Amino acid sequence: MELTILGCYSATPRPKTHPTSQILSIKNHLFLIDCGEGTQVQLRRYKVKFSRIKHVFISHLHGDHYFGLIGLISTFMLLGREAELNIYGPKGIKEVMLLQLKLGKAWFNYPLKFHELESKESEIIFEDDKVTVLTVPLKHRIYTNGFVFKEKIGERKIDIKAIKNHNVDISYLQKIKQGSDVENNEGKLILNKLITLNPEKPKSYAFCSDTQYYPACIPIIKNVTALYHESSFLDEHRHLCEKTRHSTARQAALIAKEATVERLILGHYSTRYSSIEEFKTEAKQVFDNVELAEDGKKFII
Amino acid sequence: MELTILGCYSATPRPKTHPTSQILSIKNHLFLIDCGEGTQVQLRRYKVKFSRIKHVFISHLHGDHYFGLIGLISTFMLLGREAELNIYGPKGIKEVMLLQLKLGKAWFNYPLKFHELESKESEIIFEDDKVTVLTVPLKHRIYTNGFVFKEKIGERKIDIKAIKNHNVDISYLQKIKQGSDVENNEGKLILNKLITLNPEKPKSYAFCSDTQYYPACIPIIKNVTALYHESSFLDEHRHLCEKTRHSTARQAALIAKEATVERLILGHYSTRYSSIEEFKTEAKQVFDNVELAEDGKKFII
Repeated sequence: MELTILGCYSATPRPKTHPTSQILSIKNHLFLIDCGEGTQVQLRRYKVKFSRIKHVFISHLHGDHYFGLIGLISTFMLLGREAELNIYGPKGIKEVMLLQLKLGKAWFNYPLKFHELESKESEIIFEDDKVTVLTVPLKHRIYTNGFVFKEKIGERKIDIKAIKNHNVDISYLQKIKQGSDVENNEGKLILNKLITLNPEKPKSYAFCSDTQYYPACIPIIKNVTALYHESSFLDEHRHLCEKTRHSTARQAALIAKEATVERLILGHYSTRYSSIEEFKTEAKQVFDNVELAEDGKKFII
Repeated sequence: MELTILGCYSATPRPKTHPTSQILSIKNHLFLIDCGEGTQVQLRRYKVKFSRIKHVFISHLHGDHYFGLIGLISTFMLLGREAELNIYGPKGIKEVMLLQLKLGKAWFNYPLKFHELESKESEIIFEDDKVTVLTVPLKHRIYTNGFVFKEKIGERKIDIKAIKNHNVDISYLQKIKQGSDVENNEGKLILNKLITLNPEKPKSYAFCSDTQYYPACIPIIKNVTALYHESSFLDEHRHLCEKTRHSTARQAALIAKEATVERLILGHYSTRYSSIEEFKTEAKQVFDNVELAEDGKKFII
């Protein structure tokens, strides 16, 4: 799993920082998470192939999280895209996208599917044989979801040496990976566990932005491999969190600790701070494994 | 009058080129003309003071001309703007802006006034004591207007030497500038033309993007000091103009010549061309005084 930060600053775009957008590469998918203004340029800058994006997840309808979406949808049209595009986001997103396309008399050359969200409970919004995506209801000024991206447990791994030792025919490989016991060349039943190894531990990534300190989300993000949690402010400005419904670096770390995640990635910094190093220092007082998102940075999860 | 090109490329934003947007400084106004995605960043990059923008003119509702507007409106809110903002653009622009503000539960801290356009005839859409702005109906795939920005004839200039020679009291200066004859200190009537000079010739700027070759606009832009005319393609690709309703550099020059403008500025280049120099060469075969718009370039008019 690989996470590329396209933008991780709050509020308005500036020449050197970008609003929220991320690309998650997971099991052959490229998921786009949020899409602030200028995301299409950031995708070009980091050489993300447009045609590989088939699913876009929008947390909430504040501009710094979705004003770049209509431009991306339009560019896909101009480029002659044919592949389906799925957009998961709060109710209302379909109306505003379609209105803009209608006003521009845009032609449709690819299927655009909207999956509008309005539940206040966590729900599965995407699933295939390798990945599950769930919403993480958050608490912000407007209806907002985070998302958890979970790999499913993979197939069992073949133990080549054991296969040979037990004289098992290799035409059974697919069945063996799926966990079946098989007969060997002498007609003897060989138990699966003798010829396979445990699959790799599935990984998971949780994206939680924007939200005030909200421990109710902990059961849904429990034990994830990596948690991105917003930290708009430092503790010295925690009074601003009440009004704006954002979190401090310390609060993000408290969530990470309570959810016993493996690592915490901070982001969505207010542009009032000239350096972001202090966010790490503050969070580390509560939770040790803290990293800072930065525009263009990649995280191998 | 000073024109700053914030973006002058067609289609989609790229790391190094920007979609259409311009700032026209005229008689103490800063007019924003079109507002493609990323315009607020370009305004920051070129250090344009946000609070001085009070009028935004949108030619048409294709994304590369207005997808940056909602971000700019939102940023103005975040920054606590109080001054009124006037937006002139095709019918529909109000609905789409207000829908996005509603979905984001944005608070209004400044008056936002929409002036929706739907006339197919040229009309005056802004006027004060120094400037007039008219629409220039154009021919594109959707309803589109260019704009002409005209200075009004200024006050007459005081001829200081003549004032002294004719023994005129300086308390009359304002009346004299406005063209009045006045009595001098000996009670003799002094004709205005004896103590003033002609005002400077008023300047004018016409913005024509996007449009196919459309000579019907010529009477409205006749004799302007500077004409910005789109040239999406070179003549070798003129077949594309028919489908997309754009112009070639040669066609832009034909309009400039027929309208006897003083200078022609080309822009809205298709991103298919690696160099824009050829646009100038082609246009100069028809009209001599041709310049190329480039992102960040300033033109003193």
